[in-house]
Amino acid sequence: MSDSIRIAIAGLGTVGAGVVKILAERGDVLALAAGRAIEIMAVSARDAGKDRGIDISGFRFEKDARALGVAADVDVVVELIGGADGIAFDLVESALLNGKHVVTANKALIARHGAHLAQIAEDKNVALNFEAGVAGGIPIVKALREGLVANEISNVTGILNGTCNYILTEMEETGRDFEDVLVDAQDLGYAEADPSFDVGGIDAAHKLAILTSLAFGTKVDFAQVEIEGIEKINATDIYHAAEFGYRIKLLGIAEIVDGGILQSVQPTLVPFERPLAAVPGVYNAVAVTGNYVGDVILEGRGAGQGPTASAVVSDIVDVARGFVFPPFIIPTAKLREAKAPAKNSLKSAYYLRLYAVDRAGSMAEITRALALASVSIERIVQSGERMEAGSGRLPVVFMTHETDEATMREAMTLLAEHADVAGEPVMMRIDNSATH
Amino acid sequence: MSDSIRIAIAGLGTVGAGVVKILAERGDVLALAAGRAIEIMAVSARDAGKDRGIDISGFRFEKDARALGVAADVDVVVELIGGADGIAFDLVESALLNGKHVVTANKALIARHGAHLAQIAEDKNVALNFEAGVAGGIPIVKALREGLVANEISNVTGILNGTCNYILTEMEETGRDFEDVLVDAQDLGYAEADPSFDVGGIDAAHKLAILTSLAFGTKVDFAQVEIEGIEKINATDIYHAAEFGYRIKLLGIAEIVDGGILQSVQPTLVPFERPLAAVPGVYNAVAVTGNYVGDVILEGRGAGQGPTASAVVSDIVDVARGFVFPPFIIPTAKLREAKAPAKNSLKSAYYLRLYAVDRAGSMAEITRALALASVSIERIVQSGERMEAGSGRLPVVFMTHETDEATMREAMTLLAEHADVAGEPVMMRIDNSATH
Repeated sequence: MSDSIRIAIAGLGTVGAGVVKILAERGDVLALAAGRAIEIMAVSARDAGKDRGIDISGFRFEKDARALGVAADVDVVVELIGGADGIAFDLVESALLNGKHVVTANKALIARHGAHLAQIAEDKNVALNFEAGVAGGIPIVKALREGLVANEISNVTGILNGTCNYILTEMEETGRDFEDVLVDAQDLGYAEADPSFDVGGIDAAHKLAILTSLAFGTKVDFAQVEIEGIEKINATDIYHAAEFGYRIKLLGIAEIVDGGILQSVQPTLVPFERPLAAVPGVYNAVAVTGNYVGDVILEGRGAGQGPTASAVVSDIVDVARGFVFPPFIIPTAKLREAKAPAKNSLKSAYYLRLYAVDRAGSMAEITRALALASVSIERIVQSGERMEAGSGRLPVVFMTHETDEATMREAMTLLAEHADVAGEPVMMRIDNSATH
Repeated sequence: MSDSIRIAIAGLGTVGAGVVKILAERGDVLALAAGRAIEIMAVSARDAGKDRGIDISGFRFEKDARALGVAADVDVVVELIGGADGIAFDLVESALLNGKHVVTANKALIARHGAHLAQIAEDKNVALNFEAGVAGGIPIVKALREGLVANEISNVTGILNGTCNYILTEMEETGRDFEDVLVDAQDLGYAEADPSFDVGGIDAAHKLAILTSLAFGTKVDFAQVEIEGIEKINATDIYHAAEFGYRIKLLGIAEIVDGGILQSVQPTLVPFERPLAAVPGVYNAVAVTGNYVGDVILEGRGAGQGPTASAVVSDIVDVARGFVFPPFIIPTAKLREAKAPAKNSLKSAYYLRLYAVDRAGSMAEITRALALASVSIERIVQSGERMEAGSGRLPVVFMTHETDEATMREAMTLLAEHADVAGEPVMMRIDNSATH
């Protein structure tokens, strides 16, 4: 067996503590699998004394994580601090520049600075692994980098945020509204005190940007992701979607559309019978369509100590085994720009929900407005049952024929200003195109 | 970029032709991903002149595949001949002994001789990759070897044979019997002229034996797999399973039971709402339960030219990237024996179907026999509707309370000899234990 591989762990939160725990519990087997022992040399955290349920007395403690990036006795820096910039960025960049391998769970960092950091990793011939950054314990980065490498990919679609999926699942099962369920999710630790990062779709968008790069050979480009969260979805939407045979999921979709790459995170109506519709609670899932392999779907826990630490450790073992190659599969210099397609080119049917002012003739006016906006309606449901008592607002749901997003956006603007529409209307794409 | 990696392909059937096709179509991108060009030096097949829709004129043609194992200009032998012994075995063994990497899609070979061949690969420090041998295009071997390596695995459950899953799906959708659907499947090319290998569960058992070894760190031991095919399942079984809320799937299950490792391939009743119940037609799926990661499920096409060739090519790229480590994760010398548990220890509820002789008192006698055999019944369905007209045989279905397999087998022996039972009764396990 070779010399041990020497690692340093920056950040001892839930995931960092999980990594220490796994290496303690499974060190012997992992050494056999890796061909060498994995040895923790140093750790860094804000508070040395905090009880994390792990023993860190055998490791050097660095108050400043940046020290790990230049430590002479460290081969691999494991970055679990988080944040796209600041210490996390400084540490990863310096570690790579100093010829150290980096393993990170930091999706924001890779989504924002992935191409820059990958170039340094390649120049220094070291690994930059981020399996834990995308969909927790699901080995989707490895699947794209290695297992499906033969394929030209045309579509990646994922449920990439467990908080959102938990909230949507709960809303469906209990019939309650978003705000209500969110409070519960916060109590259970499934949502942060400031939930905007998750429910606003940012977290899913970070992951999608990374998947896009791996799938399509493009420079990771977070700015190209169209992002919409789940905050506007209410119990009426969940109810009507189900009546029509759909479940609402926050989907991240990257696909080739007219030669451009569409990257979007948005609540979407998925037919019940599709695998992605069945993904419950905090689970994540990613479906990949390749030209040879067809559809491949990976599902599992997208967050939490165990799954995320499992992914971090697998990345460390890969480094110990000597696996080093470009982080985004092909050399960074060969990655293309992730050019977005013309918006008009994406055709889809849409779900549209609004509240009509409860007076004679309002429905006629609203449908006339939609016709003028060139939106062709397949079904209308105006359901008195779901009217909020005494609100004077009547929920109305439309399913449109296939149209393009620009047409829908224009119609939404018209409707929002319409005298017979109360409040802001909501539109969602209906996913009828794919088999997953 | 380094020198090219030089491969030889033995066997130009569907998969072999697919590999040649992918390397021709995607050679440029694959060279970037692998860090070097992948060059086909030689091929071997029974008939040099046959039209396969690929151009092999640029490759040396060897009539005898064994020549590839000793060819001085070959770094990787890709074995796509098939069969546990004979030429395939000779070629792979000699290639490894000659210090060549081997990539194979041959599940029978690995299930029967995996430990022997892995030892040679380790001694020679070469790779022995067999992703294409298990579940076609699904990167499950890589997931177990690498992505989930941190985990102690407690259960692997898979739908591992697309032919069986197609037949079962068709039986459910059309209400037709096994023999009927099999003929159609043969016409469509989803089943072989001699289907016994698939419908008898042997093919799934080969794959399960390999998964067991990867998941539990044991020497692959095909002889330990309990195998039951789908030949005895009829339309009545499909119908009643559905009435009870279950779908019949041929499941391969490897799990820790009382410190032993149960390996079984058998038709099983899976609750509708479970992911594995939803896997349709020729698709395969594998669920893995790890102590840190929880449940991870991978689903995709388990056979066919594209998916299988995709897996073969990913294995070749891994070799080109320089990934070499023990084929069964840890060194062969450290693998344990796959000791089966005591049969009695596995508890489960069972589905039991028989045909009662249609005369007064027969049901009383049969239920008395079951009581004497200590089988406790939860539900009985005796459905006149599904009686074959004029047969004098009345289908009866039982759902048992939890019991052990030995008790059930004894009861089955008693029933088979019972004067009130016509023909052979059928029993199937009900999978209520897992979350996948």
